[in-house]
Amino acid sequence: MNISPLKSFDRIILGIDPGTNFMGYGILGLEGKKPHTIALGVIHLHKIPDHYMRLNRIYERVLGLVEQYLPDEMAIEAPFFGKNVQSMLKLGRAQGVAMAAALAREVPITEYEPRKIKMAITGNGAASKEQVKEMLKRILSLSDQQMPGELDASDALAVALCHFYESSKPIPSTGSKSWKDFIAKNPDRVKGL
Amino acid sequence: MNISPLKSFDRIILGIDPGTNFMGYGILGLEGKKPHTIALGVIHLHKIPDHYMRLNRIYERVLGLVEQYLPDEMAIEAPFFGKNVQSMLKLGRAQGVAMAAALAREVPITEYEPRKIKMAITGNGAASKEQVKEMLKRILSLSDQQMPGELDASDALAVALCHFYESSKPIPSTGSKSWKDFIAKNPDRVKGL
Repeated sequence: MNISPLKSFDRIILGIDPGTNFMGYGILGLEGKKPHTIALGVIHLHKIPDHYMRLNRIYERVLGLVEQYLPDEMAIEAPFFGKNVQSMLKLGRAQGVAMAAALAREVPITEYEPRKIKMAITGNGAASKEQVKEMLKRILSLSDQQMPGELDASDALAVALCHFYESSKPIPSTGSKSWKDFIAKNPDRVKGL
Repeated sequence: MNISPLKSFDRIILGIDPGTNFMGYGILGLEGKKPHTIALGVIHLHKIPDHYMRLNRIYERVLGLVEQYLPDEMAIEAPFFGKNVQSMLKLGRAQGVAMAAALAREVPITEYEPRKIKMAITGNGAASKEQVKEMLKRILSLSDQQMPGELDASDALAVALCHFYESSKPIPSTGSKSWKDFIAKNPDRVKGL
């Protein structure tokens, strides 16, 4: 669903909540410090019987979003723990193809754990998906019609907004004398695994 | 390492042994029922510090192999179990980007468990990687110089040869009255997860 027209934003962030049944996406445009929702939605994969065709669909749809909205960055919701090794393998594949699509267009990626996203949006790392959705509606002034019922879409928008908050934090001016010090003191602000 | 010139083979199979530190590849050309080694080698990833750059490298190198050797099929070594959820997530990402590169050029994929590959090549599902390598050298008439020391390369060639053997098996003519029956009786011959 397209919400704001693609006017000249200072920065565009693509948020992705990857899964093998549903993949949520949310696109945030920043006008200075003000975030606007450009688009959000869910890519339905559960009706595609073949596992590889699902991976192919994820790749094509994420590449399509990158080419359509030209995001400067991609933020991805990435749980570090899962039910079992097989579900993590499947999730890893879905994440991998979504990441490959962004990397194919040189879009840098940052990952956030669900708990961190919930904390950034609601102030509570254990908030429910519904609470995250309601808070997003308030922060981004979205109507009931504009916010889809599917929670994968709001989760994706949440990771995009979380990335905006995290990347807008001022770099502390005291204490860290060098990048090496800064990185050592702020391991959570370093990209990558 | 290129071994056979790219003459007109009836069928070309790309074998991939994906990992986040090393990714092996082996390319098999089939002249009727006779397999020839076209190329094999290892893509070194362990020196690339950034996790995302590793995924990008896997994508680009697998796409490069697909475009250079024009394989008809890709066979991939895919363990179903791993040490822990985090290693499986990482492995899933590496597999996902390798698969996405094949899917981008519409190359169909088949997965094989390590045990099945070892059984197909050596007749022993618990064979060591060294035993698999020695058997491959004999079957494919490869010299010590032609077979790299790195076991990721021989593992990748093994999955390609395993796929050739599996896909050359005659379809049983008795018992299975329909595809539905055949699939029910041969779940291991059905592609996908």
